[in-house]
Amino acid sequence: MPEPVFDIPDPIINGDTADIYFARTVEVLKREGLNPVAAMEVFPSRAGILCGIKEVEALLKRVLPPGSEVWALEEGARMERKEVVLRIKGPYQSYGLYETAYLGMLSHCSGWATAARECVDEARGIPITSFGARHVHPLVAGRLDYASMVGGCTGCSSPQGARLSGSVVAGTMPHALIICFGDTVKATIAFDRHMPPQVSRTSLVDTFKDEREESLRVAGALKGRLQGVRLDTPSERGRVTPDLVKEIRHALDINGFKEVKIFVSGGVDVERIRLFREAGAPVDAYGIGSYISGARPIDFTADIHEVDGKPVAKRGRMIGITPNPRLKRVM
Amino acid sequence: MPEPVFDIPDPIINGDTADIYFARTVEVLKREGLNPVAAMEVFPSRAGILCGIKEVEALLKRVLPPGSEVWALEEGARMERKEVVLRIKGPYQSYGLYETAYLGMLSHCSGWATAARECVDEARGIPITSFGARHVHPLVAGRLDYASMVGGCTGCSSPQGARLSGSVVAGTMPHALIICFGDTVKATIAFDRHMPPQVSRTSLVDTFKDEREESLRVAGALKGRLQGVRLDTPSERGRVTPDLVKEIRHALDINGFKEVKIFVSGGVDVERIRLFREAGAPVDAYGIGSYISGARPIDFTADIHEVDGKPVAKRGRMIGITPNPRLKRVM
Amino acid sequence: MPEPVFDIPDPIINGDTADIYFARTVEVLKREGLNPVAAMEVFPSRAGILCGIKEVEALLKRVLPPGSEVWALEEGARMERKEVVLRIKGPYQSYGLYETAYLGMLSHCSGWATAARECVDEARGIPITSFGARHVHPLVAGRLDYASMVGGCTGCSSPQGARLSGSVVAGTMPHALIICFGDTVKATIAFDRHMPPQVSRTSLVDTFKDEREESLRVAGALKGRLQGVRLDTPSERGRVTPDLVKEIRHALDINGFKEVKIFVSGGVDVERIRLFREAGAPVDAYGIGSYISGARPIDFTADIHEVDGKPVAKRGRMIGITPNPRLKRVM
Amino acid sequence: MPEPVFDIPDPIINGDTADIYFARTVEVLKREGLNPVAAMEVFPSRAGILCGIKEVEALLKRVLPPGSEVWALEEGARMERKEVVLRIKGPYQSYGLYETAYLGMLSHCSGWATAARECVDEARGIPITSFGARHVHPLVAGRLDYASMVGGCTGCSSPQGARLSGSVVAGTMPHALIICFGDTVKATIAFDRHMPPQVSRTSLVDTFKDEREESLRVAGALKGRLQGVRLDTPSERGRVTPDLVKEIRHALDINGFKEVKIFVSGGVDVERIRLFREAGAPVDAYGIGSYISGARPIDFTADIHEVDGKPVAKRGRMIGITPNPRLKRVM
Amino acid sequence: MPEPVFDIPDPIINGDTADIYFARTVEVLKREGLNPVAAMEVFPSRAGILCGIKEVEALLKRVLPPGSEVWALEEGARMERKEVVLRIKGPYQSYGLYETAYLGMLSHCSGWATAARECVDEARGIPITSFGARHVHPLVAGRLDYASMVGGCTGCSSPQGARLSGSVVAGTMPHALIICFGDTVKATIAFDRHMPPQVSRTSLVDTFKDEREESLRVAGALKGRLQGVRLDTPSERGRVTPDLVKEIRHALDINGFKEVKIFVSGGVDVERIRLFREAGAPVDAYGIGSYISGARPIDFTADIHEVDGKPVAKRGRMIGITPNPRLKRVM
Amino acid sequence: MPEPVFDIPDPIINGDTADIYFARTVEVLKREGLNPVAAMEVFPSRAGILCGIKEVEALLKRVLPPGSEVWALEEGARMERKEVVLRIKGPYQSYGLYETAYLGMLSHCSGWATAARECVDEARGIPITSFGARHVHPLVAGRLDYASMVGGCTGCSSPQGARLSGSVVAGTMPHALIICFGDTVKATIAFDRHMPPQVSRTSLVDTFKDEREESLRVAGALKGRLQGVRLDTPSERGRVTPDLVKEIRHALDINGFKEVKIFVSGGVDVERIRLFREAGAPVDAYGIGSYISGARPIDFTADIHEVDGKPVAKRGRMIGITPNPRLKRVM
Repeated sequence: MPEPVFDIPDPIINGDTADIYFARTVEVLKREGLNPVAAMEVFPSRAGILCGIKEVEALLKRVLPPGSEVWALEEGARMERKEVVLRIKGPYQSYGLYETAYLGMLSHCSGWATAARECVDEARGIPITSFGARHVHPLVAGRLDYASMVGGCTGCSSPQGARLSGSVVAGTMPHALIICFGDTVKATIAFDRHMPPQVSRTSLVDTFKDEREESLRVAGALKGRLQGVRLDTPSERGRVTPDLVKEIRHALDINGFKEVKIFVSGGVDVERIRLFREAGAPVDAYGIGSYISGARPIDFTADIHEVDGKPVAKRGRMIGITPNPRLKRVM
Repeated sequence: MPEPVFDIPDPIINGDTADIYFARTVEVLKREGLNPVAAMEVFPSRAGILCGIKEVEALLKRVLPPGSEVWALEEGARMERKEVVLRIKGPYQSYGLYETAYLGMLSHCSGWATAARECVDEARGIPITSFGARHVHPLVAGRLDYASMVGGCTGCSSPQGARLSGSVVAGTMPHALIICFGDTVKATIAFDRHMPPQVSRTSLVDTFKDEREESLRVAGALKGRLQGVRLDTPSERGRVTPDLVKEIRHALDINGFKEVKIFVSGGVDVERIRLFREAGAPVDAYGIGSYISGARPIDFTADIHEVDGKPVAKRGRMIGITPNPRLKRVM
Repeated sequence: MPEPVFDIPDPIINGDTADIYFARTVEVLKREGLNPVAAMEVFPSRAGILCGIKEVEALLKRVLPPGSEVWALEEGARMERKEVVLRIKGPYQSYGLYETAYLGMLSHCSGWATAARECVDEARGIPITSFGARHVHPLVAGRLDYASMVGGCTGCSSPQGARLSGSVVAGTMPHALIICFGDTVKATIAFDRHMPPQVSRTSLVDTFKDEREESLRVAGALKGRLQGVRLDTPSERGRVTPDLVKEIRHALDINGFKEVKIFVSGGVDVERIRLFREAGAPVDAYGIGSYISGARPIDFTADIHEVDGKPVAKRGRMIGITPNPRLKRVM
Repeated sequence: MPEPVFDIPDPIINGDTADIYFARTVEVLKREGLNPVAAMEVFPSRAGILCGIKEVEALLKRVLPPGSEVWALEEGARMERKEVVLRIKGPYQSYGLYETAYLGMLSHCSGWATAARECVDEARGIPITSFGARHVHPLVAGRLDYASMVGGCTGCSSPQGARLSGSVVAGTMPHALIICFGDTVKATIAFDRHMPPQVSRTSLVDTFKDEREESLRVAGALKGRLQGVRLDTPSERGRVTPDLVKEIRHALDINGFKEVKIFVSGGVDVERIRLFREAGAPVDAYGIGSYISGARPIDFTADIHEVDGKPVAKRGRMIGITPNPRLKRVM
Repeated sequence: MPEPVFDIPDPIINGDTADIYFARTVEVLKREGLNPVAAMEVFPSRAGILCGIKEVEALLKRVLPPGSEVWALEEGARMERKEVVLRIKGPYQSYGLYETAYLGMLSHCSGWATAARECVDEARGIPITSFGARHVHPLVAGRLDYASMVGGCTGCSSPQGARLSGSVVAGTMPHALIICFGDTVKATIAFDRHMPPQVSRTSLVDTFKDEREESLRVAGALKGRLQGVRLDTPSERGRVTPDLVKEIRHALDINGFKEVKIFVSGGVDVERIRLFREAGAPVDAYGIGSYISGARPIDFTADIHEVDGKPVAKRGRMIGITPNPRLKRVM
Repeated sequence: MPEPVFDIPDPIINGDTADIYFARTVEVLKREGLNPVAAMEVFPSRAGILCGIKEVEALLKRVLPPGSEVWALEEGARMERKEVVLRIKGPYQSYGLYETAYLGMLSHCSGWATAARECVDEARGIPITSFGARHVHPLVAGRLDYASMVGGCTGCSSPQGARLSGSVVAGTMPHALIICFGDTVKATIAFDRHMPPQVSRTSLVDTFKDEREESLRVAGALKGRLQGVRLDTPSERGRVTPDLVKEIRHALDINGFKEVKIFVSGGVDVERIRLFREAGAPVDAYGIGSYISGARPIDFTADIHEVDGKPVAKRGRMIGITPNPRLKRVM
């Protein structure tokens, strides 16, 4: 993955999105003339895949004065529960305001990346496209897709996510297209007519007719140009099951459409992937939305462990710097 | 709550955060010269508190041509599973690209507002401040706080959230302030010296010493100016328990500090609130973070039910417009 | 229900299907010249609906000498666990051989009738047809259907069962008919052309196409002559769900086929009926097979409680005749 | 096991026990002049022991015209879930009526045989006699015993079952015999006096007295002629437990009756057998009734996969003939 | 219940059974010349029946100097979790050594009394005899029986327990007596011949023969002098069940022994009592052993809440005297 | 462990604590002139550690006439469920009265020893002190401590228990000492001043202040003389957790007090020990109270298996002597 470029917008820099007590703390310290060199350590509340650290670095580099130190694990690294993944050492007034922001970046992105990795691990090589943009606020849809890619997805559906992760944006066709045309075959033929050649011809086959019937109709209509069918059967029709995938594969094969891939979406999660695999369903690709986008953020905690070179810690924490040889100095 | 003002930034308008297949769909339709008047209906996958609809309206009003219709439930309304909360009727090309955005706004914000409402209902009148900004990406920290307020919280910690929801920003003091001073009493005295009078004097009492000892020390030091103590005991020290709250209350009272309120934070959720209530713990206010910020987004689905006046629906959905007398026309 | 007529075939009369030790017992008693008047009492191992007692009476009347007594509950009566439902009093040699037969008739038939009653109770007035003949040996298929009718079903699928229960045989059409024709509409038109008017025109709509599409096709083709559609969706396609029934109903209605009934089959059991009811699915009739046919027989036990007027009982049983005022003397 | 001889009675041949819609289907096809060569495949809904296929073959050979094909697994074969165990290929009109019958034969008999096999497997060589005739309708008592023998039992209690399976009928003595005599010892002596030598002298020892006392009395009375005692303790007296078996064995042994076997009956099932085995109870034989007779039939399904040489299948099934090399052609 | 008399033996007075650190504490205080008037409060860790407080009072009255105060709930009172049941106020040196002893008296005795009360409540008026002496060390067998009586039992089996509780000692006969005679009838006749008239003639009927047979034999032999039979069937013979009690009652009644009571023992606990009651078993009395004797002691805790008139408390406790109007001053 | 010396007090010898029916049995036998040589066997109802057998031997040796036999397993031996651990053979009149006593000694003591062994096994070498005296009646506090030592504890808190088990009595300091002094440091200094050198200087650090703060204060005050700190945090303050132990260890170490041990008490049981071990908490010693003292007594049963050389047994038991090669003759 190429190095992503993160712009830090003004509301983050000026504290508009920060917990107000940090602004007040900095204010009190300034008025008291106190600006100790504090070592802040950040750890997650559960194990997972670290994500967001690149954006955190971009933020810290903008605000820390020269001579400060930032130590971190790498983007995408596996982290243990309570492992220190970030250590900041510098004059507290310069970065005290940003605790809300850097914890939030890590929490949200690591939650998504971790969920994506679980799917990728369970899929054992079957490619996964991130489809979850529709379940998060559009302001963070690109971050979700980026985190999914950090977690191991092979494609994502938003241009912003694709750009941040240096990948090509991916998609098939929505039900709306077919409903506007009134027929899957007509919609697919029009799609094929107007889309540039690099866009995959993957038709959605559960809109109006039974999936088996529709798959054979659309494969027949595109005469070898069809690259895949997407099964997205709604729960009211029993969802996509391993048996359905097998039956569609079998029907395509005995009718001479062995080259048509089967793309499965609709409520796919780790448990469903396992179900498909254990049942031997010949899935060629998955589209996963809410399992990743709905992943619980991983809470991160920041604690000061040293003040002007003196080991400290609040109750419940170990006094002094926590050694972690995996940390690399990034500033 | 006053009417919030939402700006829709460019990446949303130009589709940078949208699923790519919507851009492709609009492209195909344009090339085919098809622009049917489509009625799109949106419903949630589970019951909850609707939030985000104001921002959705701001978006749709920017993109829909005159003569289009938008029908919606009100911000903060309780919605049922599968109830239609939004209906858009207009030329499909004008709004097809925004399905990702309006679903995402509703999903994320309704998830947060619903979780906040659960806490508010359980607390039975005890005020709750939203403290979750640190667990979400700062780009949406303000939306989280706004949704918490829609859900019934009485305060939130970010200036952006307070502005969107027309409220006053709320906070106490972080452990970092106390650690920089090296002593809770010193930190609290400095805080009291420099903060304007409208800022609450609420001291955090679990940093270095036992909570009972520290509460009495700080109450004694501020001589009647202390408004509250915040208990945020870490799990390594047993968290905040009903017994602890009772004991602190008892200790403050018999030492003459009846006016000092007790503010509880740290892993507070619906179950903990019930625990405190059933145990009769005299909590005066709660600060709630990850229960709200970590709430799973509520997936919303959009379906076309009418095309150029003709009832339609994909398999699994009822054909034609779904009657819902609760919907109000907002455009 | 008219009085059923049961013929007792030779293998039952000559002991070919009896436990051999009864034949040996009678033999030993004959050789010893012992033929006491014994009072045998029969009770079930669990509560339920008594069925088979008519056939038992037919058997006993054939073998008991004059002066013997038979007391019984009525066919279809609700019986308690361990309640005496049958008492035989007569010379033991005359009926000792038939313990296997009369227990077996009661066990198998009461098991089926009890399961049928559970469905009938849960369905709250929606008629149920017994469809289970295919899951039991054909020698007892008629008994199964008879027991289902005793339990409260309103129809059954085998002529023998209909004759025993004095009802009209019921059925729709099998997948085989449609597959032989290659199309549901063609098969339904032919069925309509050749069947006498009293046979219901109920078409099976899940064979080749989506149920919604097929229902509308066949309703349109029969022009008002279609009385019902049967939904029998296989588990590979998600079974019949409440949502599917609602959607088909809605689609039929808005297309002007309000008179077409919806008949549901395929794995229907008490739990599914409850599910349909609680979800408000507009089911008009159920076809139930394996829940009834696969019901566990209710074990019955026979004990001698009196020998030549003297109260007796084996260990674990109460000595002497067990009073039960519900028993009626039937011989 | 010798080849069993099954007569197919008239009600099966003339459709009296068949689902009526098969008769109607054949009628419609006749009137339309349609008689396609159809390939019907039959599979079970769960794994188990196939039983009833011999009777099915007898039926099909009577009704199929020359040139038809029947392929089947062997009686007693272990079959997988959804494995094709029977394929019929012939003019549909000739066998369409018998789907109810052949499915029912397989369902009921395979259910029993599978349950019997579970007991046999768990018993690890300890012989089991089928005692379940009393829990099923006498019309199928012989089929039950036959299926138990196919499943691995070493004896059964009905003459019909013994004849079908080519074995010797087995039994001990019922409580009724002892109650008629008023004493276990008297009854056993009379039994011994009159029964031919090949009948086992196994006395039932729980009728009037404690099992230990009675076992020693009867063993003492028969002076070496006693072959076994049967423990059938009712649940009101604690059932037969491993401790009881051990104690009776110990009491018989130290009193010099080592040759007397212990036969256990009364609610024996797979779990009880395991309990006895794990506790090291010296059981010599089991009599098992309702676990086998009450086994749920295994539902079988029949589907047409080819019509006049053309691959077909209803939704949810694979189109065309299903390969299964284990099938043998039997017609 | 008359006032019990408790002697406090020397090892308790001299600290031989006390935690050593109390002796050391008193030693340190003496050497430092510290002897504050301390108010010690004692509470239980769970709700129950208070027992042992009489013995505690006897101990404290022996060691506390005049002017000291002792406040307590009454023996047999129901106490809540964490309710103060005892308050001692006096010079700490005089009673500090006895914390182990008074906590232990309360813990052990309250545990037993609480378990007895549970049985008594469940039995709804059916008398219960305490039979648990054999499951505790003989040094405390009398205390166990005393606590059982405080809990509501109507009799106990040890002379010491009967004397402490002012009741008459109760018992039937052991298996050993019957085994020494070799026959239940012989043993019962001898018992009847030699015992004074006030001793109940209750025969134990499960030693050698079936309970029903033995009950009738012994009732017949004593010709109206038999007052009861005790059922104590071992688990190897199925324990005493409701069905057994009913059957014995029925057999005694129809043979003219309506006056013979049924006494049930052997693993009786709250759950068994409920089982007997719900099944309508005609039990006349219970003997209960290990449910009471094996009851977990109720841990009690002692805390100082006042030192020389100044309110104090360790962390986790409320500072100062805990008001409890139920306490009565007993010294 | 040296041979313990047990005195058998009069109330045991004269039957004051025995079930009354044993006294009556001996009386009846005397009057009948029956004094058979009976072999009594004793077995436990569950597996565990045998304890109390030494005291039983002391009792039996006092009452049995010469020529009698006593066979037993060793004190502290692991015993199986239903294994014979004691066999007495002698004239029944001489020992019949003592069945209550010897069963009670074994029951209570074996229950304690078994619970102690479970803790010892789980602790894997970390020493455990028995602290349970306060939860049992002081009459048996010494037996509890003795049994704990037999079970593997390395110390106990009562002088009587220490004497019986030939060990040194162990303890730290109670909260009462600290509350009398008003400060942990003052109390600890006084303790150190007056206690003889062999008494461990282990300070209790949870009374008034946070454990970390107090540990450092007291370690600093004793200047190298402090041997340990005891953590006994109440549940209201979160109990002692693995994290707390680690944090205290870390704080002591980095402040130069590596020699100070950490002693953990307060609700410690097998599950807590496992929790500490699996979390890697550096515990140096445990104090365990109610898990051992509250252990359920192990019920023991005594049965006569031989009378005057003739094998016998009540129903449910094996007739005659039970061979057990592990038994040693001790009289």
